[in-house]
Amino acid sequence: MSVPVSRPEGNAAGDGGDVVAYMNRLGQAARDAAAHMRRAPTATKNAALLAMAARLEQGRGEVLAANARDVHHGRAAGLDAALLDRLALDDARIDAMVEGLKQVAALPDPVGEIDGLRARPSGIQVGRMRVPLGVIGIIYESRPNVTLEAASLCLKSGNAAILRGGSEARESNAAIATCLAAGLAEAGLPAAAVQVVATTDREAVGRLIAMPEYVDVIIPRGGKSLIERIAREARVPVIKHLDGVCHVYVDATADPEKALAIAVNAKTHRYGTCNTMETLLVDAPVAEALLPQLAVAYGEHGVELRGCERTRAILPDCEPAEESDWHAEYLAPLLAIRVVDGIEAAIAHIERYGSHHTDAIVTENYGLARRFLAEVDSSSVMVNASTRFADGFEYGLGAEIGISTDKLHVRGPVGLEGLTTCKYVVLGDGQVRQ
Amino acid sequence: MSVPVSRPEGNAAGDGGDVVAYMNRLGQAARDAAAHMRRAPTATKNAALLAMAARLEQGRGEVLAANARDVHHGRAAGLDAALLDRLALDDARIDAMVEGLKQVAALPDPVGEIDGLRARPSGIQVGRMRVPLGVIGIIYESRPNVTLEAASLCLKSGNAAILRGGSEARESNAAIATCLAAGLAEAGLPAAAVQVVATTDREAVGRLIAMPEYVDVIIPRGGKSLIERIAREARVPVIKHLDGVCHVYVDATADPEKALAIAVNAKTHRYGTCNTMETLLVDAPVAEALLPQLAVAYGEHGVELRGCERTRAILPDCEPAEESDWHAEYLAPLLAIRVVDGIEAAIAHIERYGSHHTDAIVTENYGLARRFLAEVDSSSVMVNASTRFADGFEYGLGAEIGISTDKLHVRGPVGLEGLTTCKYVVLGDGQVRQ
Repeated sequence: MSVPVSRPEGNAAGDGGDVVAYMNRLGQAARDAAAHMRRAPTATKNAALLAMAARLEQGRGEVLAANARDVHHGRAAGLDAALLDRLALDDARIDAMVEGLKQVAALPDPVGEIDGLRARPSGIQVGRMRVPLGVIGIIYESRPNVTLEAASLCLKSGNAAILRGGSEARESNAAIATCLAAGLAEAGLPAAAVQVVATTDREAVGRLIAMPEYVDVIIPRGGKSLIERIAREARVPVIKHLDGVCHVYVDATADPEKALAIAVNAKTHRYGTCNTMETLLVDAPVAEALLPQLAVAYGEHGVELRGCERTRAILPDCEPAEESDWHAEYLAPLLAIRVVDGIEAAIAHIERYGSHHTDAIVTENYGLARRFLAEVDSSSVMVNASTRFADGFEYGLGAEIGISTDKLHVRGPVGLEGLTTCKYVVLGDGQVRQ
Repeated sequence: MSVPVSRPEGNAAGDGGDVVAYMNRLGQAARDAAAHMRRAPTATKNAALLAMAARLEQGRGEVLAANARDVHHGRAAGLDAALLDRLALDDARIDAMVEGLKQVAALPDPVGEIDGLRARPSGIQVGRMRVPLGVIGIIYESRPNVTLEAASLCLKSGNAAILRGGSEARESNAAIATCLAAGLAEAGLPAAAVQVVATTDREAVGRLIAMPEYVDVIIPRGGKSLIERIAREARVPVIKHLDGVCHVYVDATADPEKALAIAVNAKTHRYGTCNTMETLLVDAPVAEALLPQLAVAYGEHGVELRGCERTRAILPDCEPAEESDWHAEYLAPLLAIRVVDGIEAAIAHIERYGSHHTDAIVTENYGLARRFLAEVDSSSVMVNASTRFADGFEYGLGAEIGISTDKLHVRGPVGLEGLTTCKYVVLGDGQVRQ
């Protein structure tokens, strides 16, 4: 394989080469580029993004040809249909990538913003300035458009990025990397601001997540097993989410129409996303009225139901839910339903089985809404809205590099701000400490 | 040893007991208490803090007696004078602890604050609510007042705390823990909201930092080797700083009086603190005028100087600085001095040798001030002020549990806000995703 960019020196690592030395070179180059990127003016970063968009537009044929080779190899290697779908690019997906670059260029630059500069009794002024994190490592699977999304968000937020995509997409990623490199060069930014790891050796990932001297944070995107492995082995901070076991709790005071609309949308709008509802909790007093209507609606969407005993007393055709169903992230037309006694039981269920991703209550009771918001310890907590809204674009972040269910640094959808940090700035006129 | 509080079950771990099982019980109890603390009203938390202050006031005799036993044992065990000083309590230190509790009670409660609730085109409103982190583990050395400081800040921010102090202070910590437990009980808060680890087995630390199921973040306070070990072995996020290799750069345009005042204060105000200047960088055009004056001032304070060759050409009595001096955190009346050519060289020196803690420029040039603020990648960056200001109280945080030189989550002095996180809250009227 060959990737014309992102090689700190001219020579390829080679899949059997000295991967650690290769990754160290990438790391050092990223660290050097990060010092440059920290200072890059907004206009220069935007120029690079727009140049990348233009190059991708021009290079569309090469990217599609490279992608066709990846898809051909993938099919020959027996990749499943879902994976092939995520891998495949077409004109519409390239258009979306070009559009995405332009949108990121149009976003406000968070870097340099100073928040709350206040005078202190000593005479100094103290505030917090938003600055890039430094070097961000992104590890992802087969979707080649992640290469572009991740690169553009890291660039706009003033960071250097090291991207490690799945081996299935390596030719696509190399072709995209060529466009990225051309855009950087055109704007006069260092080539190492965006590096694509040019080896499919798995040891490269092991090294990428274990070099805090070069990498400030790792963002893994992909299946749970990939993310679990990275979280376990990383020696640098990881921004991640493992599961989306999201709940909707329909309280006895809920407006039945809202309850029906939200419960159906949260499950059926898309099955494979992390903010899709996986368990529906229904307050006992309204179960008898609501569940049959819901069963009809879910039936129309072909959603299979698994219920607790009280659910099955109302919906006899419903399959019984096992303990494992309460933990399950189905990512499929499947839903677990439990009848509970009030908000206390609902919150206890969410705390025990949930994944702290996104949970919603449907209620018309002011006190219960307040209580649910305060007490449910999830990255997004909602009242009378579909869990499907947990998304960087829906929240107005303008972009999303992932969702964090961790508590430190960022929680929930991660946009440009999540790729930055704050430092204190102190302005004085010669003040000394007494 | 025996500590009457913080035992999840009645039995002591015993120093040779099953430490892992004991720590798991502490962890589970903390996790349960955290769910309670998350909901605790501000008034209840303040009542607990004030009750603790009252109990400490009443129990002053017992605390001082316990501390005298620790000091006696410490002296017999050959602890050095600095360590004995940090260990010893007296009436003034107890007064300060009581005052500290009252001050924390008077601070605004960050929990529940909702920031930037904005309407989105979909009709939902999205904002961020500040919430506790959950369970915080604090690992520290011999200073018993840390027990109280850490407990009070974790409590006020709605977290549960597990405190592991140095074995030298175990009787003092047990006596303080009794006051803390009484305060919690009086306010009706769970005893496990503050637990003091009742074993000096080192394995307890190993377990405390490796149970993400029970502990959300670890804050180590103490010497570099302790913190390095914890950062290396922790399986949960760590808020820390390793070194304070802080710089003052005196630019050619600096006001000589401000330069002298800041350079002297940053070094001599206190020698043992992490925000003390360790290396002074002087712009070449003003070195000849400034260094002799500084040498006189430092001489009066008994500060030994180690300089580069250009410094020694001006101050012949100055010892030569080795490469290791540029990396050194002396924590002593010792200062490294280097003559540099302009801001570029100064920033390059800080980037190469600094610890990203606190760095200051002295200048009257607007452009250079702006450039230093933007480009120096440290947790605090200052213009015309002493590095000694890098402190939670001086910054107006009202408290300080430590200083972070890490980039994620919090950077710089950590107050109550650093012990919290934000979750997204979404308010709707039945909205679903289109």
